[in-house]
Amino acid sequence: MSRTVLLLPGDGIGPEIVAQAERILRAVNEKFDLNLTFESALVGGAALEEMNTPLPDATLDRATKADAILLGAVGGPKWDGLPMAERPEKGLLGLRSKLELFANLRPAVLYPQLASASSLKPEVVSGLDIMIVRELTGGIYFGQPRGVRQLESGERQGFNTYTYTESEVRRIGRVAFEAAQQRNKKLCSVDKANVLEVTVMWREIMNDLQREYPDVELSHMYVDNAAMQLVRAPKQFDVIVTGNMFGDILSDEAAMLTGSIGMLPSASLNSEKQGMYEPCHGSAPDIAGQGMANPLATIISAAMMLRYSLNQEEAAAAIEAAVSTVLDQGLRTADIMSEDGTRVSTSEMGDAVLAAL
Amino acid sequence: MSRTVLLLPGDGIGPEIVAQAERILRAVNEKFDLNLTFESALVGGAALEEMNTPLPDATLDRATKADAILLGAVGGPKWDGLPMAERPEKGLLGLRSKLELFANLRPAVLYPQLASASSLKPEVVSGLDIMIVRELTGGIYFGQPRGVRQLESGERQGFNTYTYTESEVRRIGRVAFEAAQQRNKKLCSVDKANVLEVTVMWREIMNDLQREYPDVELSHMYVDNAAMQLVRAPKQFDVIVTGNMFGDILSDEAAMLTGSIGMLPSASLNSEKQGMYEPCHGSAPDIAGQGMANPLATIISAAMMLRYSLNQEEAAAAIEAAVSTVLDQGLRTADIMSEDGTRVSTSEMGDAVLAAL
Ligand SMILES: CC(C)[C@H](C(=O)O)[C@@H](O)C(=O)O
Ligand SMILES: CC(C)[C@H](C(=O)O)[C@@H](O)C(=O)O
Repeated sequence: MSRTVLLLPGDGIGPEIVAQAERILRAVNEKFDLNLTFESALVGGAALEEMNTPLPDATLDRATKADAILLGAVGGPKWDGLPMAERPEKGLLGLRSKLELFANLRPAVLYPQLASASSLKPEVVSGLDIMIVRELTGGIYFGQPRGVRQLESGERQGFNTYTYTESEVRRIGRVAFEAAQQRNKKLCSVDKANVLEVTVMWREIMNDLQREYPDVELSHMYVDNAAMQLVRAPKQFDVIVTGNMFGDILSDEAAMLTGSIGMLPSASLNSEKQGMYEPCHGSAPDIAGQGMANPLATIISAAMMLRYSLNQEEAAAAIEAAVSTVLDQGLRTADIMSEDGTRVSTSEMGDAVLAAL
Repeated sequence: MSRTVLLLPGDGIGPEIVAQAERILRAVNEKFDLNLTFESALVGGAALEEMNTPLPDATLDRATKADAILLGAVGGPKWDGLPMAERPEKGLLGLRSKLELFANLRPAVLYPQLASASSLKPEVVSGLDIMIVRELTGGIYFGQPRGVRQLESGERQGFNTYTYTESEVRRIGRVAFEAAQQRNKKLCSVDKANVLEVTVMWREIMNDLQREYPDVELSHMYVDNAAMQLVRAPKQFDVIVTGNMFGDILSDEAAMLTGSIGMLPSASLNSEKQGMYEPCHGSAPDIAGQGMANPLATIISAAMMLRYSLNQEEAAAAIEAAVSTVLDQGLRTADIMSEDGTRVSTSEMGDAVLAAL
């Protein structure tokens, strides 16, 4: 049975890094006889330029039919002045929402070979391995009403709505409890239940769910404290679950603890385990087109895709092993360069992973 | 002319640390002939226990009349189950709102004597000196509508509203631009303008204001990136301005970069420069009543109060110098204890500052 992988390069460094991941995927496709078919489509600023919308119908259609999606990144200063509905980000947000990719898994893992890249002391981060489970299709990102209105006084007022229903909280809660069961059985739910009613409900539901997962130890933390604890002692965490906005902030903070955000993948899944996979880093327009970008986060995202959406553990593990090999060889793109490393370009890194496969 | 300082010890370690700050304030009051009068009142959980409300009218009345307020901390697990309106935090939020203390100044400064306390590498944080200007009386903390409603489907939906008016943004913007003018003339405004309409308006207004402060260099950063950059290279920042919720998260993260949140003060000011001063750390119920808490953040908050609300620069500087002296002497409470330090209790730390004055 043939399965379809949709490639969405997007903007900035997106096309460069997805190109390398595609090479790797095509190689494992042959090697492990995976019967994968590749398609690609436009999203974000790239789609905006050619089709006047960040999420063309054709792209959405292909995405819906694909077995898995690999995305580069979207956005850039070029489109910063546009109205919200026309921005590249709407392409990404539209995909998440239309495909109901509510479960965003963002691991923050320190590669031992890159330990010195972290801005934190080695003893604080060595062995770091956190999984952040972020709700991705609700919360203030999608809440209605939203906009800017004119008040009677004549001045404008901007407004957005932070909202969750019970079932939205419950389904992301289950994903998080299950992730914790697969790991060290510790789940920390992050909210602001001392101020925000929507998160009081969030906390209640997490407590409810806990009864179904008696082997998982559940704790709660306010978001401000979580932002602190990630800096102070990140290894206290195993799995963190939180809403869309807090998850956006905390997952980026956690990723940066490793010092090598160019290495971190993410998965966004729906209830059929259909998924969109993307690097944690953004479109980095400042280095786009220079062959400097680190393709490894995208390559590791491709491995995650093989594992979670395509059930190809062997191929996934082979890619991860190849990445580990090139790191052991000391090959480094600019973002993870260290004194004793060998500096390579985006495509040279791709070459090396391919060779290591 | 006599001026009134209202002491609000609050909960947890609040009473212990405010008691030490009061000793210091009484000492400088004599030494510099400041003509200060001290009052104290109940707020938070302490008020809840005695008067059944976290913000008694008598407290609000005294606070309104006081020239400045020194607060310890509020909250604790004891009151966690209560409905939102009865929680200790409502006492604090009520004071902020009723006194219109919209400008929250939170410095994140690394004390050279405590450099090793940071979980970050010394070269990343040495000399760190950031000022976070957080909007404190608007945003999602106070936005209406809010609550939990029953949907037609029968399930519940929680909701909060993130809202700002133009004038709210403008007044906090001015405070931030002025703070930047006093410092290194760099202002970074943090928003999520790629997703949230309310922050698109925020960004527009900051750009508008910039024309009135041509000597200040204004930049914009998305909140997820700011959370990352604070970890990666915090010294790139001078002044950061942001809304209430993002400010809550980022100021705690920034404070923790120093490794000694027990040292960091904060000021919350209204347009008459009336102010409430409090340590950045919370009520730490786990160590309350044990004489372990670090009173220095509260003592430094008292110095900030003398400087900004009471115009007593000399007395403020004397307190700060005394704090520096005790640090030089190696005196350390548990939270900042290091190998070569001398461990002291809350009141011994107070004694030492008093002696150094
Ligand atoms: C590009 C942006 C809309 C997006 C988000 O905020 O979710 C990004 O920051 C992310 O975390 O994937
Ligand atoms: C206690 C709580 C309501 C408060 C806040 O969120 O503002 C605290 O975290 C702070 O930052 O002062």
